[in-house]
Amino acid sequence: MVRILTKDNVSELLNMADALEYVEEAYKQLTLGNALVPQRIAITDPAPGLTLIMPGIIGGEMSALATKIVSVYKKNPELYNIPTVLAKIMVQDINTGDIVGIMDGSLITAMRTGAATGVSVKFLARKDSNTMSIYSAGVQARKQVSGVFYGLNQKLEKCKVYDLKKDTAESFKTEIEKELGIDVEIMSSGEDLLSNTDIIVAATTSTTPIFAGEKVLEGTHISSIGAHAPEARELDSTTIKRASLLIAGLKEACLAEAGDYIIPINEGIISKDAIISIGDIITGKKNSRTSDTEITVFKSVGISAQDVAVGKLVYDRALQEGVGQDIDF
Amino acid sequence: MVRILTKDNVSELLNMADALEYVEEAYKQLTLGNALVPQRIAITDPAPGLTLIMPGIIGGEMSALATKIVSVYKKNPELYNIPTVLAKIMVQDINTGDIVGIMDGSLITAMRTGAATGVSVKFLARKDSNTMSIYSAGVQARKQVSGVFYGLNQKLEKCKVYDLKKDTAESFKTEIEKELGIDVEIMSSGEDLLSNTDIIVAATTSTTPIFAGEKVLEGTHISSIGAHAPEARELDSTTIKRASLLIAGLKEACLAEAGDYIIPINEGIISKDAIISIGDIITGKKNSRTSDTEITVFKSVGISAQDVAVGKLVYDRALQEGVGQDIDF
Repeated sequence: MVRILTKDNVSELLNMADALEYVEEAYKQLTLGNALVPQRIAITDPAPGLTLIMPGIIGGEMSALATKIVSVYKKNPELYNIPTVLAKIMVQDINTGDIVGIMDGSLITAMRTGAATGVSVKFLARKDSNTMSIYSAGVQARKQVSGVFYGLNQKLEKCKVYDLKKDTAESFKTEIEKELGIDVEIMSSGEDLLSNTDIIVAATTSTTPIFAGEKVLEGTHISSIGAHAPEARELDSTTIKRASLLIAGLKEACLAEAGDYIIPINEGIISKDAIISIGDIITGKKNSRTSDTEITVFKSVGISAQDVAVGKLVYDRALQEGVGQDIDF
Repeated sequence: MVRILTKDNVSELLNMADALEYVEEAYKQLTLGNALVPQRIAITDPAPGLTLIMPGIIGGEMSALATKIVSVYKKNPELYNIPTVLAKIMVQDINTGDIVGIMDGSLITAMRTGAATGVSVKFLARKDSNTMSIYSAGVQARKQVSGVFYGLNQKLEKCKVYDLKKDTAESFKTEIEKELGIDVEIMSSGEDLLSNTDIIVAATTSTTPIFAGEKVLEGTHISSIGAHAPEARELDSTTIKRASLLIAGLKEACLAEAGDYIIPINEGIISKDAIISIGDIITGKKNSRTSDTEITVFKSVGISAQDVAVGKLVYDRALQEGVGQDIDF
């Protein structure tokens, strides 16, 4: 039997508090050597878009095995009126190999990315944090705020946002204020996001730095989830240089894909050794911040372990709550 | 909309004549550079079995993009009374990236492997061939006979079979005689398969040579689809040495996985250059046999392009014939 879960089913079953817990566990198992993230496969030519095949396995109590197939076709909205990014996740029974769950992967992708930032906030931000700023007000950004909210144990009170599109910022404000009951302030420039804030989230499509590192206040925690190519970055070298902790979702993945770290390494500003996987902080192998004046940076590029963990979560909840439909293949 | 196709649906939609045509086209597009078979991903620890993730893309008229997820868990029959090998194929729309079909992959795997042998027979066996021999009478072997039957344009008249299990050989005979209307003779030893035959198919689980190459008759075409690890093989070095043509489903895949070719190469009996992809024969880049006395060898290890082609075939037929059920994810 295969449990089929539509976008609506996933939306009904998934909440950020759970996602955060599962993503934290995935990072932990990666550090413990009980999880595996194989190099993903990218397929393009002769297709007009990109498909990424992202399998992964997480041992321990979670025992999750799944593959996400995600496609990025930039002309989809214009040509077919469908989203650029489409994704599905196939969950296998780790004990038999059988595919037992197939689910829409769009919301899961946004939620696990928000959860990654949430985990970073939980382990790296100042304990008294209650304000945040976010660059971009798009779909990904909304789940980022949710991630921060639960990463701070629902103590987030205020979010400042800046987006080039005024409409997007307005609908962001309406949605977030309703969903999380926090105060959202729309700012008129990116620079306005740097003051009076405990946490900065960068969730843009920019490939060049979006703020000047020298203006970041002491004690700030920064999470960057945009730019994910060796030559692209959201954070400048000054930000990286000023930070006391340079944390990665997964060190190996960031050293392969994250210009935010790769460019300063190539410039000789930091060494590779300075980059630490967040699993090392979660397991206590490495220390987190030791003062309220340090700047901490978290950079994550999507890795399959996040999807595998949240896919397993959704599948487990579906069985518990009797949601979705079964197909006998 | 995603078209869901169960094992029964696939069985209703798929026939060997079509499968052969699609697999031939896949091999052709590979040689033309319009198809891509990325290195598959293998996942094991901490799972108790193996999962292979096999995506591929084929351009040209076929325009197929799909991924097979296949698991091999040897203890499944004993522990859970389910098959060792389980597979599903996810078919994407090459123009949008969207997953539009999800189908059972077990029959497709057996059929595409039979079709590969069928294509080899079509291009490499003597034109007057009408008899074959097959080592093993298992599930894979049955589709091999079907592949040979259609590869010979339904001119196959007789099949000799040898299997250690008498019961399996008996049910093979009953099934094949009924399905293909040919004469099946059960032999009492493997050596009996070598005489009075035009085509030899090796479809065993053996990891060491199953017959002595010096006993193979001139003019025979051999297809080996068993052994698929660098140190395992069904064919001995004498067979390889005597053959005038050493053909691979895909040269690169055989050089990575097929001991039948790798071992003689390492022994210095043949050079890598002697191995030719069947696509080179199909497209006419290289010549096929030029006499009725040559021994020809075809070795194939499973490659995703075969699954992608046959998966697309099944999906297209399902839409044409209104088979399966649609899920709105």
